Amino acid sequence: MDATRLLVIPGPIEVSDEVLYANAHPSMSHVSPDFIPIFGDCLRMTREVVLSTEGQPFLISGSGTLGWDQVAANLIQPGENALVLHSGYFGDSFTECLETYGAKVDQLKAEIGAAVSPEAIESALKSKKYRLLTFTHVDTSTAVLSDAKAIAETVKRVSPETLVILDGVCSVASEELRMDAWGIDVVLTASQKGLGVPPGLSILVASPKAIKVFESRTAPVGSYYASWKKWLPIMKAYEAGNAAYFATPPVNLIYAYHASLSQITKKSPSLEERFELHRKASQQIKDTAAELGLKQLALDPAFAAQGMTALYFPEGVSAGDVLPKLGAKGIVVAGGLHGAIKDKYFRIGHMGITAVEGQRGDIQSVTTALKEVFAEIAKK
Amino acid sequence: MDATRLLVIPGPIEVSDEVLYANAHPSMSHVSPDFIPIFGDCLRMTREVVLSTEGQPFLISGSGTLGWDQVAANLIQPGENALVLHSGYFGDSFTECLETYGAKVDQLKAEIGAAVSPEAIESALKSKKYRLLTFTHVDTSTAVLSDAKAIAETVKRVSPETLVILDGVCSVASEELRMDAWGIDVVLTASQKGLGVPPGLSILVASPKAIKVFESRTAPVGSYYASWKKWLPIMKAYEAGNAAYFATPPVNLIYAYHASLSQITKKSPSLEERFELHRKASQQIKDTAAELGLKQLALDPAFAAQGMTALYFPEGVSAGDVLPKLGAKGIVVAGGLHGAIKDKYFRIGHMGITAVEGQRGDIQSVTTALKEVFAEIAKK
Repeated sequence: MDATRLLVIPGPIEVSDEVLYANAHPSMSHVSPDFIPIFGDCLRMTREVVLSTEGQPFLISGSGTLGWDQVAANLIQPGENALVLHSGYFGDSFTECLETYGAKVDQLKAEIGAAVSPEAIESALKSKKYRLLTFTHVDTSTAVLSDAKAIAETVKRVSPETLVILDGVCSVASEELRMDAWGIDVVLTASQKGLGVPPGLSILVASPKAIKVFESRTAPVGSYYASWKKWLPIMKAYEAGNAAYFATPPVNLIYAYHASLSQITKKSPSLEERFELHRKASQQIKDTAAELGLKQLALDPAFAAQGMTALYFPEGVSAGDVLPKLGAKGIVVAGGLHGAIKDKYFRIGHMGITAVEGQRGDIQSVTTALKEVFAEIAKK
Repeated sequence: MDATRLLVIPGPIEVSDEVLYANAHPSMSHVSPDFIPIFGDCLRMTREVVLSTEGQPFLISGSGTLGWDQVAANLIQPGENALVLHSGYFGDSFTECLETYGAKVDQLKAEIGAAVSPEAIESALKSKKYRLLTFTHVDTSTAVLSDAKAIAETVKRVSPETLVILDGVCSVASEELRMDAWGIDVVLTASQKGLGVPPGLSILVASPKAIKVFESRTAPVGSYYASWKKWLPIMKAYEAGNAAYFATPPVNLIYAYHASLSQITKKSPSLEERFELHRKASQQIKDTAAELGLKQLALDPAFAAQGMTALYFPEGVSAGDVLPKLGAKGIVVAGGLHGAIKDKYFRIGHMGITAVEGQRGDIQSVTTALKEVFAEIAKK
């Protein structure tokens, strides 16, 4: 937070001073004995955050989007089938990415504000053999949460060979997520949301089963920069305490990520307590919205994310009425992103320190500003 | 520089306090009115640094390597020919990247310490139609400089349709480089070398001719994350003062890049003076090496980079004798990287503030340490 503004968009989020300080670490060699264990720790702590013991983490310089390329280029071969569950903007983009690398994609599209039903998933999985299924855990465009546990269960039951790919860009470290227990094969995410770090790091964890599928592929990997043939030995080397080189890692951002992970994986508040603190913060925002008569995009509480909220403007009110007024009070929220209803709603992020560090008063600042702004608008 | 160590590897390099401070900028929205002009300025100043007026810059979250994917996925179609000039480690990697996206690659390989001769280039260009030619301006593995101006001239004369692709990861802002005047079609680089910023930004400038080749391609772009179909509208929007979204840009690193570019593009020292300051710093290092009887990898002064120096160890001396001793004096240099001679040499970087800000005394610190260490070794 700078002196005057609170950033509560659904990413980038507010970043702690410790993390910013680490991002300003003096320049270091990417192969130095000081840096290697920092990178190694980040790999280990990434596994902890997604509650996995055997997953293989990848930390690569790039935006969250690069995680899609990693999946599309390494885990599916040209001509194989992918099933994309569509609960907002990002389903279409992931589809396009998969098709770029030759996959044949079917989409299951939920209505705006809902996630795809288990019945629809089951029926699709029975109709065709899919190499992988992808879903957006929380779609940043709609704040719709998909039931990761139920989806994975359905896949294991109906089509156990299909890999379950969870896009957790807007969910890791803010929504409950148990990679191993639920049987998720890939969790992909980015640094600038629940993980509380500036943007620029593509973070992915692959299950042993996913790595096996990768290793047994016969077609060449479709990308150079996103190739696990290149990155897997690098990640293994750093975790084992040795340097290795494919492309220069984003050294400062790794220090920043280390600082944030050290907070997220500490005993108190524990990761479970963090999930709970996000639930509480979310409830406060959603209660305030309900008081003000603002309708969520999520059609049912079961579809509502804990790390962000998307709210329709009241009839006759536009983004231009609301966002500048919130801005004038120092509260930076985001406009709509979903093409079909872009101008009809706005989004509030409540992830990371904003949700977890109650003493900051961020949630209180947001709810107060919302009340004041909508009271002003109502007066007109 | 931290309190005790001077980082003089050929990237990441020492970063100024202003740049580190900017990297710790409070979290900002990537579409905020404050950030948009910062991004726009970075695009404009990037053009200035490579001495181009019409080039199209791309700034994408990623390592320098991602620049190869941009070239290979956007500028050449499957089955088309590429000619790779090989003056060290990076020629092989660029070849592999081009082949990943379907290009047919021929390599012209110079002996270690030399660049490819103009005669060999001319003869290759006459033998076959090449969509593009790539060369490593300074190969970080060997410190060999290729004559960019002469290469571009040869291409324009013999095969004017062939695009000239300059890998400037280890040359931009440290070696003389005139994109427009010399007729270079693509300059690709990264943030952590001459540009003096932490790693994590893939920086590329494409000539109007290159953009035309991209726009007239018939095959789909082979990458999603590196696709100019996605990024070109984003770069144009930010430069025009509007936000646009494909993937979240590395906001803090863009602030850091802005801080460094503001230094590099200022009137004094001018860019031309910077080239000269790099030449002077380089000469001091190379003179000291010569005094100490250390032989450069570069077989001829014409092949010697100005931003770094690669030196063979004397007979009977190994990395283990030299690097820890330099380290104990606070000087961090790099070992060998070129597979064939990896253990026989070491590398010193002298780019950015180390070369330009004489009052830091970095070059003096390096030459003094070199003299002391090799005197100690000689005594044994």
